[in-house]
Amino acid sequence: MIAVEGYAAQSAKAPLAPWSFERRDVGPKDVLIDIAFCGVCHSDIHQARDEWGGSRFPMVPGHEIVGHVTAIGSQVDQFKVGDRAGVGCFVDSCRVCVNCKADLEQFCVKGMSGTYNGFEQDKVTPTFGGYSTRIVVDQKYVLHLPEQLELAAVAPLLCAGITTWSPLRHWNIGKGHKVGIVGLGGLGHMGVKFASAFGAETWVLTTSPGKADDAARLGAVGVVVSKDAADMEKHAGSFDFLLSTISAPYDINAYLGLLKVDGTMVTVGAPERPLDLHLFSLIMGRKSIGGSLIGGIKETQEMLDYCGEHGIVSDVEVIPAEKINEAYERMLKSDVRYRFSIDLKSMAA
Amino acid sequence: MIAVEGYAAQSAKAPLAPWSFERRDVGPKDVLIDIAFCGVCHSDIHQARDEWGGSRFPMVPGHEIVGHVTAIGSQVDQFKVGDRAGVGCFVDSCRVCVNCKADLEQFCVKGMSGTYNGFEQDKVTPTFGGYSTRIVVDQKYVLHLPEQLELAAVAPLLCAGITTWSPLRHWNIGKGHKVGIVGLGGLGHMGVKFASAFGAETWVLTTSPGKADDAARLGAVGVVVSKDAADMEKHAGSFDFLLSTISAPYDINAYLGLLKVDGTMVTVGAPERPLDLHLFSLIMGRKSIGGSLIGGIKETQEMLDYCGEHGIVSDVEVIPAEKINEAYERMLKSDVRYRFSIDLKSMAA
Repeated sequence: MIAVEGYAAQSAKAPLAPWSFERRDVGPKDVLIDIAFCGVCHSDIHQARDEWGGSRFPMVPGHEIVGHVTAIGSQVDQFKVGDRAGVGCFVDSCRVCVNCKADLEQFCVKGMSGTYNGFEQDKVTPTFGGYSTRIVVDQKYVLHLPEQLELAAVAPLLCAGITTWSPLRHWNIGKGHKVGIVGLGGLGHMGVKFASAFGAETWVLTTSPGKADDAARLGAVGVVVSKDAADMEKHAGSFDFLLSTISAPYDINAYLGLLKVDGTMVTVGAPERPLDLHLFSLIMGRKSIGGSLIGGIKETQEMLDYCGEHGIVSDVEVIPAEKINEAYERMLKSDVRYRFSIDLKSMAA
Repeated sequence: MIAVEGYAAQSAKAPLAPWSFERRDVGPKDVLIDIAFCGVCHSDIHQARDEWGGSRFPMVPGHEIVGHVTAIGSQVDQFKVGDRAGVGCFVDSCRVCVNCKADLEQFCVKGMSGTYNGFEQDKVTPTFGGYSTRIVVDQKYVLHLPEQLELAAVAPLLCAGITTWSPLRHWNIGKGHKVGIVGLGGLGHMGVKFASAFGAETWVLTTSPGKADDAARLGAVGVVVSKDAADMEKHAGSFDFLLSTISAPYDINAYLGLLKVDGTMVTVGAPERPLDLHLFSLIMGRKSIGGSLIGGIKETQEMLDYCGEHGIVSDVEVIPAEKINEAYERMLKSDVRYRFSIDLKSMAA
């Protein structure tokens, strides 16, 4: 377990009781995963620092987990020892509600079990994530990872990947669409890769004109500089679809002005404060704003298979475990292209 | 022309130049309509009182116009003298843009010609509406009205009707859907009639529990009292679709909480001030908010034909022209069930 700052702070306040982060033995349907890499998601910072409230400590962040199966339960039939395996943002759900049955476990009526800072389905037992060397998860919530892809770069697909894949697929984005990915960070860079792979004319909307080269390399046809009123005006009423990854408050009406009639803007970024929404921005042009949250297990597997076929991974900077707090600081300055991936082998050293 | 308050005020400031409100002779493609009734829309008040800014005076409000054809141009082939005829919120558009060609003239790229307080396509000649005895309109922008319906009660279909019909149709509302109509006024009461006619389980969301009987009479299965937290909680996560007619600022997040996964809320009401939108309200459950604006000519005709077949009209209170300012005051107190319809014959008296 890596001592992230929030954890360290909490530890100082309340010394830890004897505690196991491998709380669960390998049950009949479980797989034990030896974690190779874990991606670092912006939400790790929010939760480690208790910026969303309700954080529980001690905490082991991390929900972009990849590694290898080192043990399986007696009833496990989907994995064998030695297989690559991945775990995303949740490790369980009720399995019987309307949403679970529709492969939308992320919207489980009784609440999914977040991979960390959450509870098992008993609503009592805390969950611990991927900034660790091992994790035990029911095979139903474990993903198969393509053999041909670099593991460190696969890790972020489990959150940043599926988070952008899911809305692009749900809203049927592809050839003939002019699509804008708003914000070029961990999520945004995956959005650009997917949207362009699906055949859409993909643009990056960014405050940083300096990202134009990177945007092009990732598959975009160009950038729209959102701070540049003339640039925004040039693209007014021209987009079919916008995918926003912005997590700070912003003027959503300005982006709605970029949509054509019947255009849709979907957000996967969630600013803490509410945005000012002018309903006229939607009424004029029958426009919509939607939200999307990660994706279900079935959909996540489809994404991973697609990535395997098309050679798509995240752009990562691999770091050893001890660099995590530094990585957080750099993320807050957008100083990473585009995702940190922790090499968990560094913890054994 | 009826002297509404805004007009009277402006007239006092700037005496009128010699002016004709029947500015246009009947051209080759025009029909001259003898106006029988004109519905009174809330937007008439906003514009007559210049509450949206940019009002032009003298003004003749009114865009829910029904009457009979009394003259036709040489090339008119869709109407003959004596026909019933209606005019809605616009009287022209560019006819060649992508939206006009898609029968979405309300989103004309060059701007539709609003029936009043707008300009003809020359962008110079002002338009004057239905608080009058006659109007000349190109046949392409004139609707056929079912013979069997009471004219006074047909008038509001031209705005309140199509405004609620269009989103319910566009979002394919029908059997199997739990639908909420938010606000039971001129628009809302038409929304209830249409949604229930389409087979949806229709609820009225209102701040007034006293409207339960009326809601049932109009076709609703029940009301949800939006000020009653327990009632709102009872319906949390249960609606497929909400259609909001609210035109004052409100907590949109509370309504989004009523939607199930993949649910959609569409607004046709436009509060002047922006609303506080928490993006989490959309993200949790992949929900959407959309907007909708009246409807195109083709769609309006479809609605009128449907109303003829199903005997659907607006609930109206017919008033003589001289009661218009009193009607405005009563509308502001929601003291009308559910639309005023001006009897224009009263102007001849």
